[in-house]
Amino acid sequence: MKEFVEFELTKEFRDRFQEALDQKDNGFIRDSLKDINPVDITSLLYEFNADESKYTLDILDLEIRAAIIKDLDSDTRKTFLKVYTPLEISNIVNLLDSDDAADILNELPIKVSEEVLSGLDPVVHTQVIDLLRYDENVAGGLMAKELIKARNHWTVVQCVEEIRKQAEQVEKFYTVFVVDEQDKLLGKVALQDLVISDANKRVADIIEDVVSVETYLSDTEVAEIMKKYDLESVPVVNVQGQLVGRITIDDIVDVITEQADEDRQLMSGITEDVEEDDTVWKNTRARLPWLLIGIFGGMLSARFMGLFEEELTRITAIAFFVPLIQATGGNVGIQSSSLVVQSLASTGYVDEGLWKRLSKVLFVALLNGFFLSVVVFGGNWLLFGNQQLSFVVSLALFSVVVFASLVGTITPLILDRFGFNPAVASGPFITTINDLLGLTMYFLTVTVLL
Amino acid sequence: MKEFVEFELTKEFRDRFQEALDQKDNGFIRDSLKDINPVDITSLLYEFNADESKYTLDILDLEIRAAIIKDLDSDTRKTFLKVYTPLEISNIVNLLDSDDAADILNELPIKVSEEVLSGLDPVVHTQVIDLLRYDENVAGGLMAKELIKARNHWTVVQCVEEIRKQAEQVEKFYTVFVVDEQDKLLGKVALQDLVISDANKRVADIIEDVVSVETYLSDTEVAEIMKKYDLESVPVVNVQGQLVGRITIDDIVDVITEQADEDRQLMSGITEDVEEDDTVWKNTRARLPWLLIGIFGGMLSARFMGLFEEELTRITAIAFFVPLIQATGGNVGIQSSSLVVQSLASTGYVDEGLWKRLSKVLFVALLNGFFLSVVVFGGNWLLFGNQQLSFVVSLALFSVVVFASLVGTITPLILDRFGFNPAVASGPFITTINDLLGLTMYFLTVTVLL
Repeated sequence: MKEFVEFELTKEFRDRFQEALDQKDNGFIRDSLKDINPVDITSLLYEFNADESKYTLDILDLEIRAAIIKDLDSDTRKTFLKVYTPLEISNIVNLLDSDDAADILNELPIKVSEEVLSGLDPVVHTQVIDLLRYDENVAGGLMAKELIKARNHWTVVQCVEEIRKQAEQVEKFYTVFVVDEQDKLLGKVALQDLVISDANKRVADIIEDVVSVETYLSDTEVAEIMKKYDLESVPVVNVQGQLVGRITIDDIVDVITEQADEDRQLMSGITEDVEEDDTVWKNTRARLPWLLIGIFGGMLSARFMGLFEEELTRITAIAFFVPLIQATGGNVGIQSSSLVVQSLASTGYVDEGLWKRLSKVLFVALLNGFFLSVVVFGGNWLLFGNQQLSFVVSLALFSVVVFASLVGTITPLILDRFGFNPAVASGPFITTINDLLGLTMYFLTVTVLL
Repeated sequence: MKEFVEFELTKEFRDRFQEALDQKDNGFIRDSLKDINPVDITSLLYEFNADESKYTLDILDLEIRAAIIKDLDSDTRKTFLKVYTPLEISNIVNLLDSDDAADILNELPIKVSEEVLSGLDPVVHTQVIDLLRYDENVAGGLMAKELIKARNHWTVVQCVEEIRKQAEQVEKFYTVFVVDEQDKLLGKVALQDLVISDANKRVADIIEDVVSVETYLSDTEVAEIMKKYDLESVPVVNVQGQLVGRITIDDIVDVITEQADEDRQLMSGITEDVEEDDTVWKNTRARLPWLLIGIFGGMLSARFMGLFEEELTRITAIAFFVPLIQATGGNVGIQSSSLVVQSLASTGYVDEGLWKRLSKVLFVALLNGFFLSVVVFGGNWLLFGNQQLSFVVSLALFSVVVFASLVGTITPLILDRFGFNPAVASGPFITTINDLLGLTMYFLTVTVLL
């Protein structure tokens, strides 16, 4: 058995490897990568530039080269493949599963992509052309064409024979899909049932029902279904119910991870898909838009407070509580929207309707608002000794808590209804709006009561 | 073939079902659930109380009952199983995979759990006892004992014979694990290779190397490994290298989802694992602690601003820019920590060291700070016409951006080093600290320059 060496990327190894690259020490490069899993070689390549990476890959076998390029993240691969000729790319793509092949072709400039397509093996060519029609965020764009089909009337022996023929093209499979003459999906047979079944049994005797998805289903819906039914692969059917591909769980795990990353980025006010190790300029650009929104809100706040200059000059202490009011409004708003985002993500509950939802949120807000107001009233009285001001601040705080809860609950629901990612509502945009509204409520209370 | 009906939980169906429950209309209950996937019945049960749910389940077959109870979320199941006798629970647990069985036993009060254990089949009993030793957040606590083992010297035919014997206990498997006489893990054979291999070949001819995990590895590390190598199951070995269990990808998908939920809750300042449809009281309690921290910070801010009462009375306009300074500090801090959290979550990069990281963050902060200061200087000059104040505000803003970036970067690194979830750093706690520090820098600048 060939055993993969456990690989940890150390600074020492990287420096030694850089040296080997500089000296074109092919022996060292080949030997040091010999027993390393392609996935680990991929992570090593992130440390070198495109020419150095290509130099390394050209020393390795074509299969390993293909596996490594398949594993690169999309941004890196786009840059990296610029140092490859279309023919070189075709040779690599020919070895990949159709879904990975289509992903790579989607990333290439249209001219290169046409040339690469013309260099593909006929079978791969047909499969890839079929997949390129789909948007990458729907089931059709996630699926691979490689799968094993069987017919109801086959015996187990016939089925195994067929698998032997079809299996060459399919790298990994755990399930055989059963179709009729029109390729309509009828069910599935688990590989394990095939192994342990009597050789003379028919497929029809061991067929099981199967959950399938339509080509147009969104990637998050597919993820939800696979998660719910604990599936390791799911067949994809077209509108006629014909089997056209399958999606495996590893692709869905990526979808789930990317979705979580995207949500976190939206919540923390970062645009573009940026990572800490991207360039300074890209990092700056990804942060600026949301910061500018915050700045804009801050300047509106300043302008707004300017309207109350008279009150502020009369009682300077009014200003002291602006941070308290704003921070609480922001925190309450984010808590509320975050819970809504979470419940929108988990399906399967009866939708209780907007009013029931809001009335519950209102109760929670009233309770929280009451507790916090009491704490703030007591604290302020002790700290500042001004009973009247303490009362006004507490009252304003109470309304801000209630109000921010409602805004935080309704906003993600509206965003979701109109097809936006509701996680935006936990981000700086809504916080800015909540800040402004909190300030308004505070100064209105102050003007009326003081 | 038995085909599952596509199931969507409507309000109408729920009301009709409630009626059937009230009238003990067993016929309707049985018929309406006959062709529904147990997973969907689980989601239906969330709509009824424990007694009603048990009444429904008792009408169904024991296997379906077990599947439904397995799928319940942990909190609901804890409450639900209180209406069951230990013997009833034993009968259900006997039908489950060992990992699910151990999960349920872990949730039960110790006395009930002992009674349930004593009612288990001997094989299940041994397996569960072995699993109960492990914490639920490590590989040992995630694994199931059910797996298929083979030996190197077996032929494919022998192997299939053995699988037939062992398979009864193992619900789903795609891989056969190869061990030696001491049960040490040697490698794996994919089921598909077994199906298409010559009957006289030996296991040793088709064995492949396998990635395994140790029992003590944390669930997030296991998730990272399975994601990296696209595994649908991974064998678990003890310190002696002996095969003791396997983890399947569906359990890991749950780990990934829970991790993302936890991160989001930390970022939005919600303690406890709370959902929107939990009780009003639980929702209130989950939010209060972080809100109180915000309140505490707000009152400190108020106290702090009180120290500058004289300056504020002299130039009221100073107060106008407090929201601007604080919002920007908060936004920058969250952006920074969120990027660090993200890069801490993705392994495989060479750690560049703290200084390189900080110097890069510093550059980004200087650039952002510069842009924002220019915008604010121009805007303020236009809006308020006070050149000196505009300059002071811009200067303070610049330092706050730089400072909040550094705090936002360092805090999650420190939290991570000491074993806390770094996502806490994107939450209200750090925002509160950043608010206070931003305020300090602003008033220091004001006092020195105005």
